[in-house]
Amino acid sequence: MLDETAKGVFTIACTPFLPDGALDLPSVDRMVDFYLSKGCSGLTVLGVMGEAGKLSAEESLTFVKRVLARADVPVVVGVSAPGFAAMQSLAAAVMDAGAAGVMVAPPSHLRSDAQILNYFHNTAEILGDTPFVLQDFPLVTQVHIPTSAIIQIIDDCPTCVMLKHEDWPGLAKITTLRAASTAGGRRISILCGNGGQFLPEEMMRGADGAMTGFAYPEMMADVIKAHDAGDHAYAKDIFDCYLPLIRFETQPGLGLSVRKHILAKRGAIAHETLRKPGGAIDPATAGEIATLITRQETKLAALI
Amino acid sequence: MLDETAKGVFTIACTPFLPDGALDLPSVDRMVDFYLSKGCSGLTVLGVMGEAGKLSAEESLTFVKRVLARADVPVVVGVSAPGFAAMQSLAAAVMDAGAAGVMVAPPSHLRSDAQILNYFHNTAEILGDTPFVLQDFPLVTQVHIPTSAIIQIIDDCPTCVMLKHEDWPGLAKITTLRAASTAGGRRISILCGNGGQFLPEEMMRGADGAMTGFAYPEMMADVIKAHDAGDHAYAKDIFDCYLPLIRFETQPGLGLSVRKHILAKRGAIAHETLRKPGGAIDPATAGEIATLITRQETKLAALI
Amino acid sequence: MLDETAKGVFTIACTPFLPDGALDLPSVDRMVDFYLSKGCSGLTVLGVMGEAGKLSAEESLTFVKRVLARADVPVVVGVSAPGFAAMQSLAAAVMDAGAAGVMVAPPSHLRSDAQILNYFHNTAEILGDTPFVLQDFPLVTQVHIPTSAIIQIIDDCPTCVMLKHEDWPGLAKITTLRAASTAGGRRISILCGNGGQFLPEEMMRGADGAMTGFAYPEMMADVIKAHDAGDHAYAKDIFDCYLPLIRFETQPGLGLSVRKHILAKRGAIAHETLRKPGGAIDPATAGEIATLITRQETKLAALI
Amino acid sequence: MLDETAKGVFTIACTPFLPDGALDLPSVDRMVDFYLSKGCSGLTVLGVMGEAGKLSAEESLTFVKRVLARADVPVVVGVSAPGFAAMQSLAAAVMDAGAAGVMVAPPSHLRSDAQILNYFHNTAEILGDTPFVLQDFPLVTQVHIPTSAIIQIIDDCPTCVMLKHEDWPGLAKITTLRAASTAGGRRISILCGNGGQFLPEEMMRGADGAMTGFAYPEMMADVIKAHDAGDHAYAKDIFDCYLPLIRFETQPGLGLSVRKHILAKRGAIAHETLRKPGGAIDPATAGEIATLITRQETKLAALI
Repeated sequence: MLDETAKGVFTIACTPFLPDGALDLPSVDRMVDFYLSKGCSGLTVLGVMGEAGKLSAEESLTFVKRVLARADVPVVVGVSAPGFAAMQSLAAAVMDAGAAGVMVAPPSHLRSDAQILNYFHNTAEILGDTPFVLQDFPLVTQVHIPTSAIIQIIDDCPTCVMLKHEDWPGLAKITTLRAASTAGGRRISILCGNGGQFLPEEMMRGADGAMTGFAYPEMMADVIKAHDAGDHAYAKDIFDCYLPLIRFETQPGLGLSVRKHILAKRGAIAHETLRKPGGAIDPATAGEIATLITRQETKLAALI
Repeated sequence: MLDETAKGVFTIACTPFLPDGALDLPSVDRMVDFYLSKGCSGLTVLGVMGEAGKLSAEESLTFVKRVLARADVPVVVGVSAPGFAAMQSLAAAVMDAGAAGVMVAPPSHLRSDAQILNYFHNTAEILGDTPFVLQDFPLVTQVHIPTSAIIQIIDDCPTCVMLKHEDWPGLAKITTLRAASTAGGRRISILCGNGGQFLPEEMMRGADGAMTGFAYPEMMADVIKAHDAGDHAYAKDIFDCYLPLIRFETQPGLGLSVRKHILAKRGAIAHETLRKPGGAIDPATAGEIATLITRQETKLAALI
Repeated sequence: MLDETAKGVFTIACTPFLPDGALDLPSVDRMVDFYLSKGCSGLTVLGVMGEAGKLSAEESLTFVKRVLARADVPVVVGVSAPGFAAMQSLAAAVMDAGAAGVMVAPPSHLRSDAQILNYFHNTAEILGDTPFVLQDFPLVTQVHIPTSAIIQIIDDCPTCVMLKHEDWPGLAKITTLRAASTAGGRRISILCGNGGQFLPEEMMRGADGAMTGFAYPEMMADVIKAHDAGDHAYAKDIFDCYLPLIRFETQPGLGLSVRKHILAKRGAIAHETLRKPGGAIDPATAGEIATLITRQETKLAALI
Repeated sequence: MLDETAKGVFTIACTPFLPDGALDLPSVDRMVDFYLSKGCSGLTVLGVMGEAGKLSAEESLTFVKRVLARADVPVVVGVSAPGFAAMQSLAAAVMDAGAAGVMVAPPSHLRSDAQILNYFHNTAEILGDTPFVLQDFPLVTQVHIPTSAIIQIIDDCPTCVMLKHEDWPGLAKITTLRAASTAGGRRISILCGNGGQFLPEEMMRGADGAMTGFAYPEMMADVIKAHDAGDHAYAKDIFDCYLPLIRFETQPGLGLSVRKHILAKRGAIAHETLRKPGGAIDPATAGEIATLITRQETKLAALI
């Protein structure tokens, strides 16, 4: 079961499809093996980047079970839904199947602090014993969760064990949250998203790792390892080699296409297909990606 | 099967719950009987007011089947979903079970005309032969569909047979759409929502009826009957008797609680319960509703 | 100077233009006389309905001075602005010229309770001794101010003397605010907007009057008078006569055109012109308005 | 006068303030000199990053005149305003004072293609002969302008001479726009914003330069120079040295504080003060910036 001590790299996994849009289950195994070989300590599935909203309820469960059957690391499953009944039914099913916990992002209509608190109180009640990750991603959800509200949720809901941190800018949020736990509050795990764009600074501020889907998970693993070893300059040297590509992958909307294109190039999945509505990479973009990868490899080679 | 000739009152049905939040299936029968006895020519279920988002996929289907088993009028089922797989799977299931058609509202992230067109092209393709209602409800969806885009969708998608019209203001939209069909375009059915607030004017502009959930469906039936008989002044007289309550019911968020409170008062459902998150009517509001109903009855008595 | 005891009808005044879009200053005098003859106890200028955003800084001041020179009632001036410097400079100029107070709506990017509080703390500081009206209008501003935040602003900012209440639904907000002042908090004036749609209920909940621009200010004056005399049923009878037109005027975007059309019909202003971008009333709409007015007059005649 | 041939670096200038929030006019001279010494071919003032919304109308003009008095390059002035009267009055004043052109971003309430076109038609009409820059910045404006609408505006409005391109992702937009001019459409200047994050790719796609406020304008100048010389790899090498800081500066909200902090460090302005509401850099952030600058200098030294 997921708990507050989780750390390292929880890669946000994509959902592989065949060229006709059907689930590509053999690629699921290959993808899991790929992620684990690159240093992931956990996996997160059915997030925004997992095209969760494009799957039927049955497909979601089929996919999750395939991941769980292959992975020997904790697996977190995104269960955000328009209503609590769908959330509860998916959460129950995946926990039965062996997931380590679930992840919940707030629905986009929440506005005041009280509405946000009320939503997560209801979430915690409905999930029962299931540990959950609070996803704080205002760029996509349109919900701005003040740090004070996160602290309140941590106080009120013992099953909230992790923050998927992707407010932007969000470095000060990490510092404030860590100060709150130093002052006696419960310390939960903070894994950072946003494509890894701020990973070195986030680690310095007190994060425990990364939860994001950058197509080179070894970047996150290596940066965190260097950071944990106290070699902050080296952590940044590694990071800087990948940054041009990280930047390219974080283009909203386009990012997932880029990511699947690279994962297919790397052999992690068989096809770069996105389900409709979702675009393909055009030749100009493919050329830009190829150039970025070549330059990245050259710099990494020079670094080592 | 639903087609372009549909008219009259398609009441947006609520979803009845027991006080503990479980589906109240016996109330479904009672509610269907109630709606039909008040002059409805069709029903629409799993719309925004049907708390569709709060049901699990299984519950949705259970509820729809119960309605279909009881109703001898066409039933339209809301199938709006975050993605096409869920939409397709629900649509297939309800059409198999005997629904007359489905209703689709655009997801809130659509912006440009091209994105909107593309979305409904995909919708029509995925739904195959199933006739669908295009729901145009910017206050809730945040998507503003220009009239030219609706005309294009009608041209491109023969299975789009009805517009649920609830742009606000939207009277000019009806006029423009009717001019387009007079000029040779396909004429689809236009049923109006927005709680019935503009029904007399909408009928004058060329609408075919109402698709909304006002708790007195006989208002819509009587207004439309008077309109169709050419007695426009009487249509307005009836309407004006109900308007103070119509106005009260259209308060966003609160409206559904008011509606279920009245339906329970009228014996159409056993309990006024909303699923979480969804508020109850407090005593002050209940008092306001009671006063509005008393005044409404007095005026109606004086009218006849 | 405006203070917490303000009550009655503060009509939101329009800004009259000549057919070519220039300020129509002679109409300003006529309009002020019209409003006062219909029972207004105050005026509010440069609000949303005053096309404030379409005036240059110079024009705003010219217009306000003309109103102030003519009106012998308190005049509130909308000073909402993208930044504090423009707000401060307009507020200083209009207070110098004799305004009774200013009105401030929050900018649309505010989200958390803390951001809202901070904004009004800054507002109060920048306005110094000038009394201000807090405009709570989420449908337009997109900012949802929780009741607890309003209470906090009242506590923190002694120069906040009035709430322009137009949350929707908002009746419970009035009740909670009045309970807070009964419990010892400062009692400020609450004048209600939203086109007057809920005026009878708002008065029963504890409002002090109306601040809205419905083109028949005598409706508000008469409803409030009947309410204050304890004749709540008669207040509602009056209100119900006007409600079909109130409803028609509250159509977002279109409402101002309707309002100016009627004000021109009634002789309050010379031209119904809106500045660009702002539409004119088409013949179909003009016909609907004419019918509504005729029916309204008939009902009022029957009432008296 | 600005025209379609504009190219190179148009730095978005900040507006310098004294610690008490008053305009710091001596710093304006210093800042202009700094920008010009770093290779700028033009300046853009009163943009989002220029805190335009926080200035009064008088202050805006004072500031612009000071810039114009000092700069011997074309100066573009942001004139976006809630209404056309304010836009027209500021545009007339700055053009009289010697500005080369103005820049206009669409107001956030525009939705359909027709609304966007209509807005820019009105803009062009109101601006008369004044050349204008169309600012396409959806992350801030919330308005998504399809490429087809930009092409239409270029066709319809001969005074639209430049696109400030900061859609994100936006590389395909540049390609499509350049294909349209190759196919016979008017070719306007495209300068790119977004903090310079995609400058090398944007130049390859056909952009003419940068219009952004990154605190090291020499980065843009040097990248463009290398690109124009055909040395694309070297352009990327330079870019990559600066990218960690570019990324840090593009944090929404925080970015301007970072930028002014660095400009003050570099001696370009006397104080890093932002006007309220606008935060200061805390020590943790200042430390991160210092580290980034040190690493940047080391890498640049190694490059040359």
